Amino acid sequence: MINETMYERGAESSVIREIFSYANERKAQIGADKVFDFSLGNPSVPAPAAVRASIERSLAELSPAELHGYTPAPGLPAVRQAVADSLNRRFGTSYGAADVFMTVGAAASVSCTLKAVTCPGEEVIVIAPYFPEYRVWIETVGATCVEVPADSRTFQIDVAAVEAAITERTAAVIIDSPNNPTGVVYPRESLEALAAVLERANARRAERLGHPQPIVLVSDEPYREITYGAEVPWVPSLYEHTIVCYSYSKSLSLPGERVGWVLVPQVSEGARRAMCAVAGAARALGFVCAPALFQRVVADCVDEPSDVAAYARNRDLLCDALREAGYTFVEPDGAFYLWVKALEPDAEAFCERARAYELLPVPSNSFGVEGWVRVGYCVAPEVIEGSLPAWRALAEEYRS
Amino acid sequence: MINETMYERGAESSVIREIFSYANERKAQIGADKVFDFSLGNPSVPAPAAVRASIERSLAELSPAELHGYTPAPGLPAVRQAVADSLNRRFGTSYGAADVFMTVGAAASVSCTLKAVTCPGEEVIVIAPYFPEYRVWIETVGATCVEVPADSRTFQIDVAAVEAAITERTAAVIIDSPNNPTGVVYPRESLEALAAVLERANARRAERLGHPQPIVLVSDEPYREITYGAEVPWVPSLYEHTIVCYSYSKSLSLPGERVGWVLVPQVSEGARRAMCAVAGAARALGFVCAPALFQRVVADCVDEPSDVAAYARNRDLLCDALREAGYTFVEPDGAFYLWVKALEPDAEAFCERARAYELLPVPSNSFGVEGWVRVGYCVAPEVIEGSLPAWRALAEEYRS
Repeated sequence: MINETMYERGAESSVIREIFSYANERKAQIGADKVFDFSLGNPSVPAPAAVRASIERSLAELSPAELHGYTPAPGLPAVRQAVADSLNRRFGTSYGAADVFMTVGAAASVSCTLKAVTCPGEEVIVIAPYFPEYRVWIETVGATCVEVPADSRTFQIDVAAVEAAITERTAAVIIDSPNNPTGVVYPRESLEALAAVLERANARRAERLGHPQPIVLVSDEPYREITYGAEVPWVPSLYEHTIVCYSYSKSLSLPGERVGWVLVPQVSEGARRAMCAVAGAARALGFVCAPALFQRVVADCVDEPSDVAAYARNRDLLCDALREAGYTFVEPDGAFYLWVKALEPDAEAFCERARAYELLPVPSNSFGVEGWVRVGYCVAPEVIEGSLPAWRALAEEYRS
Repeated sequence: MINETMYERGAESSVIREIFSYANERKAQIGADKVFDFSLGNPSVPAPAAVRASIERSLAELSPAELHGYTPAPGLPAVRQAVADSLNRRFGTSYGAADVFMTVGAAASVSCTLKAVTCPGEEVIVIAPYFPEYRVWIETVGATCVEVPADSRTFQIDVAAVEAAITERTAAVIIDSPNNPTGVVYPRESLEALAAVLERANARRAERLGHPQPIVLVSDEPYREITYGAEVPWVPSLYEHTIVCYSYSKSLSLPGERVGWVLVPQVSEGARRAMCAVAGAARALGFVCAPALFQRVVADCVDEPSDVAAYARNRDLLCDALREAGYTFVEPDGAFYLWVKALEPDAEAFCERARAYELLPVPSNSFGVEGWVRVGYCVAPEVIEGSLPAWRALAEEYRS
């Protein structure tokens, strides 16, 4: 009565969720203000008022049948056009509705994209540390997850290591900038170098196989809008065979509503076939359309700025205090995670000792590397402030 | 850059969607009132006022962060409990929140269930005619779709034929009552007979394999509430290894919002493992949670009666006129489809001739059988009324 792999996927406790559950139990025991839960990536900044206004407008202006009916599988044409227009204004591109496929959030975007552009037995490269669900989605489509460690100091892409990891079976590379879990943003030069490596591999492959079968660069960008001044280059402008996966979970703080998109610029016959395969994957996996009401919210709020001020304040507060206390960490350019070096080689042991101070970060093992922790600072500022003595005391304990 | 199977899934034109597109073009040419589009299953009855009231209540009472945040993967506990309570009131069961997993609509329910309870190389039995996406989802999980024809006169389950089709590799049987496309409802005796066949097969299998590995009965029930007096028996009460897949697309007329559930009654260790595998499948396929706002709509509207009066009027109007005109059809007990015998053996040829009268039903080939058409009567009553002379003239043409 069971597919054992799926049973395992369900039974595998997510470390992040486990810490979150522990935090809630602990809060009930000793008081919510005494527990410093840095586990989740649930935005603390509320959805902007424009979201509510959009919902109210739809309720007022559309009949229930128009509002809640099936949309076309790729999304409402006007919504797709609104997304394309917004990208064009920002990145000087010339996309149309046909380049955009609305999805049930970034998880669906990445899952459908991987299903569309890989075949069983192929390989997909991820840059470690990486979002743990990448491995699940890669393995679900029958491909192998190939981990390429990032530079161990900067956590930037080690482009030479990516080049060395490419094989005949490499179907895709997934990047995620601003990065979860490290908060780094990949600069233009780094992406250009990556693009050059992929182009060289494509050229070698075309020569050997006699036909082009380019490696797809999947750019997963749920954190694109959450930055602190850094430029987040537009990846399809640097590498033709890029598919962008996006979500409004973080930018509009709508993670529970499940709405995002896949962008496949229709610049070639291969891209047109890839977009058709994305549609096929969405159909085959059981996604019928993105939620209709929130598609309309996207059209209305597509240019709504993300309120990053609260995250920026938390970031500065935390960085200043941890620097002073002697921690090593990566100064985050985006997202809302601080990547902190554990004060002993074993990140889980470090988290265990942090727990005695009611500090609850996530050990880096979950993300495919050893010796670090992820501190999610998308929390109320009081949580940051309240935690600072604990961070100091923890560092003190290691020094003594 | 492509998975060819997914490309095919995307490129396969859905016959239903094609007819719908043709209808819209034709309406633009000759006027909307002159084209009789019976292709889609998009409810013509609007969502009840309670849906809007629920949305407004959520907007008024919850902060955006509470309202739009991630829910647990299986859904909000209170929503799952509300669904269980409603089932308990209606069917005398004693389900709890743990038996219910909220999904992104019935397509997700069936897709996740199949992924959870079948392994590559196994077989899943469907009763032909059947909803065409069943084949897509079955093949996506690497299983084989085994078509068992329904009784060719009544379109009820041919239980002996199901028994004959069961093999060592049968993982599941999918049923769908009230049925799309025939509108039949499976009576209690028929389901009891099916259950007995499955139990016998399970017993033989347990004897041979030395351990129980029951066949799962997937009861896909998006049309449960759309009936005209017939009882729709509660399938898990008749067969233990039943998983119910449900959607609010038809009952609350919310097809674009994508919300439904999977029910796996937690009556055995096997069932607990199956529910865990459903959760694993939802994770592996990229479903994070059902849309948060509409989960709350479900809790508020779970006992909202479906307004079937409009469908009943359409049904009676159409049945009376087609009977009088000499058509053979299955008197529908539920759903909003009329299953009409084509007036020649080739259903596609019949549809071609119907098209000359601007009548647009769907040929039965799409559903795995020959010689019939599906007439979706979830349309405005004017469409039914307007079409009656055309149906008469078409029958007349075949007689002359």
